[in-house]
Amino acid sequence: MNGAESLVRTLINNGIDVCFTNHGTSEMHFVAALDRVPGMRCVLGLFEGVVTGAADGYARMAEKPAATLLHLGPGLGNGLANLHNARRANTPIVNIVGEHATYHRAFDAPLTADIEGIARPVSAWLRTSPDARAVAGDGAAAIAAARAAPGHIATLILPADTAWNDADGPAEAPAPAAATKVSAAAVAAAAKALRSGQPALLLLSGTALRREALTAASRVAGKIGARIMSQTSNARVERGAGRVAAPRVPYPVEHALAVFKDVRTLILVGAKEPVAFFAYPGKPSRFAREDCEILTLATPAEDTRHALEWLADELGANGAAPSPEPRVRLAPPAGKLTVEAIGAAIGALLPENAIICDESVTSGRGFHEQTKGAAPHDYLQLTGGSIGLGLPLATGAAVACPDRKVLSLEGDCSGMYTLQALWTQARERLDVVTVIFANRSYAILRHELTQVGAKNPGRTALDMLSLDNPALDWVAMARGMGVAGGRATTADEFVKLLSHGFSARGPFLIEAAI
Amino acid sequence: MNGAESLVRTLINNGIDVCFTNHGTSEMHFVAALDRVPGMRCVLGLFEGVVTGAADGYARMAEKPAATLLHLGPGLGNGLANLHNARRANTPIVNIVGEHATYHRAFDAPLTADIEGIARPVSAWLRTSPDARAVAGDGAAAIAAARAAPGHIATLILPADTAWNDADGPAEAPAPAAATKVSAAAVAAAAKALRSGQPALLLLSGTALRREALTAASRVAGKIGARIMSQTSNARVERGAGRVAAPRVPYPVEHALAVFKDVRTLILVGAKEPVAFFAYPGKPSRFAREDCEILTLATPAEDTRHALEWLADELGANGAAPSPEPRVRLAPPAGKLTVEAIGAAIGALLPENAIICDESVTSGRGFHEQTKGAAPHDYLQLTGGSIGLGLPLATGAAVACPDRKVLSLEGDCSGMYTLQALWTQARERLDVVTVIFANRSYAILRHELTQVGAKNPGRTALDMLSLDNPALDWVAMARGMGVAGGRATTADEFVKLLSHGFSARGPFLIEAAI
Repeated sequence: MNGAESLVRTLINNGIDVCFTNHGTSEMHFVAALDRVPGMRCVLGLFEGVVTGAADGYARMAEKPAATLLHLGPGLGNGLANLHNARRANTPIVNIVGEHATYHRAFDAPLTADIEGIARPVSAWLRTSPDARAVAGDGAAAIAAARAAPGHIATLILPADTAWNDADGPAEAPAPAAATKVSAAAVAAAAKALRSGQPALLLLSGTALRREALTAASRVAGKIGARIMSQTSNARVERGAGRVAAPRVPYPVEHALAVFKDVRTLILVGAKEPVAFFAYPGKPSRFAREDCEILTLATPAEDTRHALEWLADELGANGAAPSPEPRVRLAPPAGKLTVEAIGAAIGALLPENAIICDESVTSGRGFHEQTKGAAPHDYLQLTGGSIGLGLPLATGAAVACPDRKVLSLEGDCSGMYTLQALWTQARERLDVVTVIFANRSYAILRHELTQVGAKNPGRTALDMLSLDNPALDWVAMARGMGVAGGRATTADEFVKLLSHGFSARGPFLIEAAI
Repeated sequence: MNGAESLVRTLINNGIDVCFTNHGTSEMHFVAALDRVPGMRCVLGLFEGVVTGAADGYARMAEKPAATLLHLGPGLGNGLANLHNARRANTPIVNIVGEHATYHRAFDAPLTADIEGIARPVSAWLRTSPDARAVAGDGAAAIAAARAAPGHIATLILPADTAWNDADGPAEAPAPAAATKVSAAAVAAAAKALRSGQPALLLLSGTALRREALTAASRVAGKIGARIMSQTSNARVERGAGRVAAPRVPYPVEHALAVFKDVRTLILVGAKEPVAFFAYPGKPSRFAREDCEILTLATPAEDTRHALEWLADELGANGAAPSPEPRVRLAPPAGKLTVEAIGAAIGALLPENAIICDESVTSGRGFHEQTKGAAPHDYLQLTGGSIGLGLPLATGAAVACPDRKVLSLEGDCSGMYTLQALWTQARERLDVVTVIFANRSYAILRHELTQVGAKNPGRTALDMLSLDNPALDWVAMARGMGVAGGRATTADEFVKLLSHGFSARGPFLIEAAI
């Protein structure tokens, strides 16, 4: 057994059975080992950002890491933006990067690069295997590091000779530990602050946005008269009819400041202190008041559901009725195709138990209100702010959950960064409906240009924010990658295409001309 | 004047008047400054790999750097692979990366990342501007660092508040220095080694592959009976009829070893010691014999033409006639569409003074023999081995040379990494003919799977090297980005489409089904 095979066996023995890959020569022994070891599903991406973004979407839904396989430093570079996003989502990934043979590195061949240097900014764990017999143990250590709560990116660099030389066999990773329970002191402090009667807000993220944790938060909030909100961006939210809604902190600074204007007690549950996404001249970075008491009930690495249930118990709220959203049955919209019509159509037609991956950025802000009473669903967002995650995220989620419909909401601009994901969706016959919000501009940047105080943008600046010359034809691009689709210019057309996409199996794309 | 404007003025005053950009909120003041300062051509890319690859192609042809504008750490990450390639080509680039406002970084907002950490592996010069008044001086230092021979990547990180706060004005960079002349000792040593009568080879790269340097090399070689070759990959070669040909060191290890089997004197002129691109089990990394004397006549940073002319003088070869290639007029091919037919068609139809950007990898190896007597042209290659440079490289070369036809030779697999370049070609109406070698597989990797000794690849491995499920339709994808094109299935169709592409102006794509 060579090093590559020892790694493949280590992955499979420890429950990692999906590998998203964009490989090259230095990873050929790993690819060859896949033939000798049954049990690994390999999913090819034609660009590394697809690979890493899909690994993110997969792990968010599968609740266990996938492996990636990338080609040396530049291949890792191409995957870096979506590793950044995954890091911000606390997603576990076993990120395997091929490298030149140990003895070949000194010759500075063209592809030689400082792989560890490139990996370090996104990796919680990082190791280059020194020889073939170390590979299985290093793989097991990477798995353990990736799975450690709340989830991490573990990068294992595999020189080619460590893959092809003889190894001993697979290694075992420790079983994933349960999330740490919070301390009684943390619960007592939160309870005390909430009992003070000051205006309070529970800010949730991470695992606190799953059904049971939301229910406990709802009991606490109902008892105390506090509000529940979620971070602006979250890895995964269980929402829709029957679940407790946690409205997002708005993105625009003014709106966010208004949310926190009166809040004197802020309890963080798997969330971070709320700050502005970007700095703007003359506007604050922090949203909470100076005199707001900020307490952490549970960090993202801790058991948020247990913490919230304990807090409810402490406050005598365990018997209280939570406030889940009632089912709202909307009529499908007609007439002009607007962002609101798209939201209404999704609210009306969304199948039960769907997964929504949302990178529509500017186009989808009304969407949350329109879908909170829709069929229950999981809602996955861009957490790291680097656009180009959406299509890969949907791809990975569909690999993880073959029996659930995935709805991928994407901007025409952000979709362009990783459009190659559509090919993987076609190749794997993934059940993904993609909606492209085709406004043909960097709409958010037009807004941002004003926000940063850049006055009277002229022709050059506006030209740099426009995508209409030439117009992108997403239906043609999708067809070029084997994905069927259609363009909707009215709400009626959109409803018809969305109904078709939801009822058929396999990937389908709708370009929504808004 | 704010910091952003002081930087734009510094760039323009120092002759940098093209900026390839994919910007976000943190770069909005830079974008706004472009309206206030005339003279900068901004070229938008829909993905950062397009931006950095185009900056590479631009500088190789313009012989001066372009600026780039990238959005924080993840945007830089997306551009990293083509910065790696540019670094290997010794291409000068003023690589500007936006960053959060200095005071905002501590809040760890979603897009916060270790930008310096990501930039370091590809940057010869790296600085984060501390405040607005430093930006112009930092910009001038970046320009100087980028222009220092043989050309470097200088990364300037620009926190948003250094762009919007008040600055003093532009700064001046020192004029680019002429390349250093080699020492008399280096020339004397090379002359002595060549006079020894041992089998000798001049290995050229960098500026040694321009017309005059090749002519001098030809005189030396003719006088001594030495061979001239070029590296396997080179940033830019002046070749075709009337120029001296320098055949490439072959990529396959066995073929390369055969080239150097009898060489006892190896003179490096702007080249590095030849080594294998990858390591393979049981095969050597170095190509030269153990007993081969290896001398550096000129490093890439030195004046290679002067060195070769001096060497010719020292050897009494200055009067010798060089051996340029005669013009060969091929008949356009007919019948089956093969790689050879494509090479023959290009040899027959190539317009005068064209620029060929070649990332066809496996498909184009016969091409060199077929085009050495074609109309004179510049030939640009992938130097860093990270596929996904070709389409952006052609884009940048076309921006640099609007009066020259650019021919972009691309693999269907490698083209997918940065296909967004086609949109920029359409938007800028660039005169680029793209030929996609559509073999619908990672052809080179099938070869590499055997080379690394992975025996009897099975279904999984072969499936991972195949692109035919679904087949990519490049004509549809190009149309989706505003580029017209057609698919050729016979040599006759290919000749017809290529003739059309060469005679029309603007971007055109041919999918060659081979």
